[in-house]
Amino acid sequence: MAETEVPFSTIAIIGIGLIGSSIARAVRERTPDVRINAYDSNEAVRTRAVELGLADKVSDTAGDAVREADLVIMCVPVGAMKAAGESIAPALPKQAIVSDVGSAKMAVARALREALPDATIIPAHPVAGTENSGPDAGFASLFHGRWCILTPHEGAAKANVDRLGDFWQRLGAKVEIMDAKHHDLVLAATSHLPHLIAYTIVGTADDLEGITQGEVIKYSAGGFRDFTRIAASDPTMWRDVFLNNREAVLDVLQRFSEDLSMLQRAIRWGDGDTLFELFTRTRAVRRSIIEQGQDDARPDFGRVHE
Amino acid sequence: MAETEVPFSTIAIIGIGLIGSSIARAVRERTPDVRINAYDSNEAVRTRAVELGLADKVSDTAGDAVREADLVIMCVPVGAMKAAGESIAPALPKQAIVSDVGSAKMAVARALREALPDATIIPAHPVAGTENSGPDAGFASLFHGRWCILTPHEGAAKANVDRLGDFWQRLGAKVEIMDAKHHDLVLAATSHLPHLIAYTIVGTADDLEGITQGEVIKYSAGGFRDFTRIAASDPTMWRDVFLNNREAVLDVLQRFSEDLSMLQRAIRWGDGDTLFELFTRTRAVRRSIIEQGQDDARPDFGRVHE
Repeated sequence: MAETEVPFSTIAIIGIGLIGSSIARAVRERTPDVRINAYDSNEAVRTRAVELGLADKVSDTAGDAVREADLVIMCVPVGAMKAAGESIAPALPKQAIVSDVGSAKMAVARALREALPDATIIPAHPVAGTENSGPDAGFASLFHGRWCILTPHEGAAKANVDRLGDFWQRLGAKVEIMDAKHHDLVLAATSHLPHLIAYTIVGTADDLEGITQGEVIKYSAGGFRDFTRIAASDPTMWRDVFLNNREAVLDVLQRFSEDLSMLQRAIRWGDGDTLFELFTRTRAVRRSIIEQGQDDARPDFGRVHE
Repeated sequence: MAETEVPFSTIAIIGIGLIGSSIARAVRERTPDVRINAYDSNEAVRTRAVELGLADKVSDTAGDAVREADLVIMCVPVGAMKAAGESIAPALPKQAIVSDVGSAKMAVARALREALPDATIIPAHPVAGTENSGPDAGFASLFHGRWCILTPHEGAAKANVDRLGDFWQRLGAKVEIMDAKHHDLVLAATSHLPHLIAYTIVGTADDLEGITQGEVIKYSAGGFRDFTRIAASDPTMWRDVFLNNREAVLDVLQRFSEDLSMLQRAIRWGDGDTLFELFTRTRAVRRSIIEQGQDDARPDFGRVHE
């Protein structure tokens, strides 16, 4: 494929939230000749998408949105994937590639395969986001420098995988191919467990007797506020992730709990060396993330202090 | 005291790290007439402090730094507080107020009382910081809009507490008076537990079999990277916090573990309602923190996406 030829001429975005609307904005900015059709099951979101000019056409049905598409991207919560797949089934063109942006790839592959048994399905996961939701929250540079993981099944045609990879690269993402099961384990550790822990600790602090919620908020700059950001992420999306990547999440959670017990014991018995050794090692992980451009190098994430 | 009259004419900063050097820079900027003497037990840090022009005088002994001070601020790890107190004891002027910036107030009060039985001690804790350490890491606006908690003992003279509060307000901080024991519980929840959890999860992800460290770093934008920031904080400082606020940390950790077990069970049994209810509640906590100006309102902490 020539470098100048876009891999798809019409894309359909099903679900116009943070990720769906960011894809729309990025496509507009990076490959303005590509036609964008969009659909959302929420009428207010569709109206807003029209106001924001996010698509060439905002359809009132999912079928209408996909009718002319050669790429369909399902940007709905993982638990809604099967129903969304069924809603596009009757109108889906034979040659279209169906992809998604979900955070649990084995469950998504299963759901889409059930809903669309004859379609060309290539699941994908752009590892990017913010704590905000909805069509107003998206922005064109969200995927810039972030990894997008494709998890094609074994028999997938290389040409199709390459086309989808090309699409994501044009939006600024770096592309990786991975087995779905391995993806689910890696993301359980790097995304799902962190979210679960953040939700938990924010709930714990909010509940503690002897401390008011006002105090928790006032003194949150001591570390707590960092956790509240991801604990403000979309509840439906995250409920579905945990229910659909259960096994891997429970596995890494078990490991986390063991490690936490070890530290608990070190604190109880005054074992400073164990604490110091871990705290030194974790510092190096942060350095690597900065070196590889996966986080803002400025102190405190670049928060404004004035 | 007249609004224009500074509460102290000469301050001594013992320990020129992130916090000590930020105090020095803030004093220079906000109350330039105040004389700053400084000392650090590390010779390289003293040399650097001279190069950076952080103080009017960088002393080679702690005693020399405090000799003319009316306010001494101990900016050393909590575990080094007693020895640092002993090092200033012989030279400490009778009328000087001794304060600190440590994150565990009961232990600090005890350590300074033992080292300086006759001194006027008013422990303090500015709830502010970044993941960076050392004299280069500080900046004048670090305390701006943040809370500084004073934990005077019951018999402390109100005039002295007010003077110290005035000092911190001039650096841009908001001042709160609190019982030391209550401080230690509140901070265990809003600062110490978050740090412990962050250190743990970064260690867990770094250790997982089946996942390479390279993968953890590449896909860290899914949430993990947020935790690596506070897990990059100074190891000595944090070891000392946990060893010196043991009881409160173990208490809130116990609560956290119970809450985590509840979520683990909800995931295992597919109880989506429990997950959804918590994830919705935690979102409101974030909103309150933003409304009260305790975090950057921009998405993703204002990280640069381009």
